Amino acid sequence: MKFSIDRSKFVNQTTNVQRAISTKTTIPILTGMKLELTESGLRITGSNSDISITSFIAQDDADNDLTIESTGSIVLPARFFNEIIKKLPGDNFELEVLNNNQTLITSGVSEFTINGLDANNYPHLPEVETDNQLIFPTDLFKEVVNQTVIAVSNQESRPVLTGVNFIINNDGLTLVATDSHRLSQRKIDITSDEEYNLIIPGKSLTELVRTINDSVKEISLSISENQVLFSFDNVMFYSRLLDGRYPETDRLIPEDSNTRLTFDTSNLLASVERASLLSHESRNNVIKLEIKSVDKKATLYGNSPEVGTVEEVLDFENLEGDDLDISFNPDYLKDALRSFGSNTTIEMSFTSPLHPFTLRPVDDKDNFVQLITPVRTF
Amino acid sequence: MKFSIDRSKFVNQTTNVQRAISTKTTIPILTGMKLELTESGLRITGSNSDISITSFIAQDDADNDLTIESTGSIVLPARFFNEIIKKLPGDNFELEVLNNNQTLITSGVSEFTINGLDANNYPHLPEVETDNQLIFPTDLFKEVVNQTVIAVSNQESRPVLTGVNFIINNDGLTLVATDSHRLSQRKIDITSDEEYNLIIPGKSLTELVRTINDSVKEISLSISENQVLFSFDNVMFYSRLLDGRYPETDRLIPEDSNTRLTFDTSNLLASVERASLLSHESRNNVIKLEIKSVDKKATLYGNSPEVGTVEEVLDFENLEGDDLDISFNPDYLKDALRSFGSNTTIEMSFTSPLHPFTLRPVDDKDNFVQLITPVRTF
Repeated sequence: MKFSIDRSKFVNQTTNVQRAISTKTTIPILTGMKLELTESGLRITGSNSDISITSFIAQDDADNDLTIESTGSIVLPARFFNEIIKKLPGDNFELEVLNNNQTLITSGVSEFTINGLDANNYPHLPEVETDNQLIFPTDLFKEVVNQTVIAVSNQESRPVLTGVNFIINNDGLTLVATDSHRLSQRKIDITSDEEYNLIIPGKSLTELVRTINDSVKEISLSISENQVLFSFDNVMFYSRLLDGRYPETDRLIPEDSNTRLTFDTSNLLASVERASLLSHESRNNVIKLEIKSVDKKATLYGNSPEVGTVEEVLDFENLEGDDLDISFNPDYLKDALRSFGSNTTIEMSFTSPLHPFTLRPVDDKDNFVQLITPVRTF
Repeated sequence: MKFSIDRSKFVNQTTNVQRAISTKTTIPILTGMKLELTESGLRITGSNSDISITSFIAQDDADNDLTIESTGSIVLPARFFNEIIKKLPGDNFELEVLNNNQTLITSGVSEFTINGLDANNYPHLPEVETDNQLIFPTDLFKEVVNQTVIAVSNQESRPVLTGVNFIINNDGLTLVATDSHRLSQRKIDITSDEEYNLIIPGKSLTELVRTINDSVKEISLSISENQVLFSFDNVMFYSRLLDGRYPETDRLIPEDSNTRLTFDTSNLLASVERASLLSHESRNNVIKLEIKSVDKKATLYGNSPEVGTVEEVLDFENLEGDDLDISFNPDYLKDALRSFGSNTTIEMSFTSPLHPFTLRPVDDKDNFVQLITPVRTF
């Protein structure tokens, strides 16, 4: 195996692939990056137990300046290989596999000889049929993932809750995530010949969204029994699926309400951020919202016995219904508010101090809801 | 005590003062920030066992928008107070001390009540006579501090080596720092009526340089028996001095040399950075420089038994003298090269593989030297 290539084009691809590679893996070869050179181009692969990413640099794209002297494959220590390539002096570099998987990398005045591993020992990538693909505009896909993934659980005690539930049927695509204290649900229109109910790990989705750069217009989703494959540009991103049955969440979302508050997300977010400065210092990170319907007044209270107290008079657009005192974790409210984007008008609906309350965008109430469970403080 | 003030002008000053305040202190009141309001303005103070910083906001500067209703003083928990003020909604805020050191802070829709401490219990600042001041242009002062402070020791076993030695006499000002593996010495012209020999803690100098913003033209140094005071703009920065006798370092700097190499700092720095990628992975972080005088060739070698080897052919301007193989810590060489600034021409002078070697700027050899002790590898 011997080739030379444009260094910056190569680095762009290894940066993507690197996301799948962990230094903490118990399988030594997975700390490496696999390079496979065929007559058509160079495939670069990284993998861990959850995700695998592969990127292809085509020989027939002149921008890549890929000159192939002999084909072959090698696995190189990913972290070093990346750092070395980033710091090489030339615009191009040459890579040649010598005896015993020793790999010579030369560029300008620099010459590195790196100990590689036999690519035959690298695990095979999962096989996912790509006949039946769902296509999403990238912006929309990123938006709905970011809006729901905030609510996944970090606790491994109920593994299914660490993922986002993708439900694909006649209604379109519904994404749901919940850590049992809060829930996020978002629906979008898509058409699919098949029905699916998948649980994709939250961490995979977070890495996926980071990997998709702004120039990508569309992303394709292919589904197999225990894997999904997201394809875009020259990148293929595989994620395992979570086993198990995702809980029915529809019945958790209250249909009626006794108190409703409408406001602009940015104003409320600033107030919650200030109130949480103190609540973060107290043992039970909680702030209280007090609604006085007759006075048309809504106030947030935070306190820390050590530091002091804070009172925020809220600036809302509309308030109707019963008086209410309700306490909750301000960080859940901050995450929920950020998910709507700045300067969006939101309706917050409450039934009682001990029942979950919801936040919905006023102009799209049916398709997006954030739910938060209050905290009992008495 | 009651006043209102422009919020951003206030934050600029608390950000400076905050540098002196540590959350790790064993003296609880020093986690606080002291505010002292007199008819002439507001003085803000922070302190730890090494440095104290005080900043003054004058009443007669209309930009500060300082309106005084009643004078007084208070100590507030520094970290929270800073965060609160940064996040308040209004352009101005009002602060009022109530009973029992409770302090009410209001701005727009926000109202904080913070538990303060009695300012009478705050330690007094050191007293430093300011009759006999030395004045430095800020750029030059920052430059010479940054060039020497890199060589101070982090080890408390010889406390004097954690400071920079300032020697002021007929020759001007000489700064010296050494951790016994490397040494940095810089001289500048100043005139002083008095002679001084001080050891200023390296950490104080690092914080000082960060505190001085780019708009400051001059900085004044006043010296007392165990303290120094740096004054600039409306800021006073106190540092304790280190007790003890700084070692004589003049005799450590070799006068003769058998091999000399002249090069541009930026080229060499890039090569050393690449070579150190591998040496960082090996147990004894060392790279080797091989000079072949007849062949006019200088090469850097780095290796890690696990990862591989690297060879860098150096791009120099001139090479003269004996052949040489010398090994050293690449991080010392990187720090030294960075201290000269990019694209500076440097002469590296060697006597033998086991004697310290020096780096000096070609156009100012007498006033600036970096010295590095090699490592024995055989």
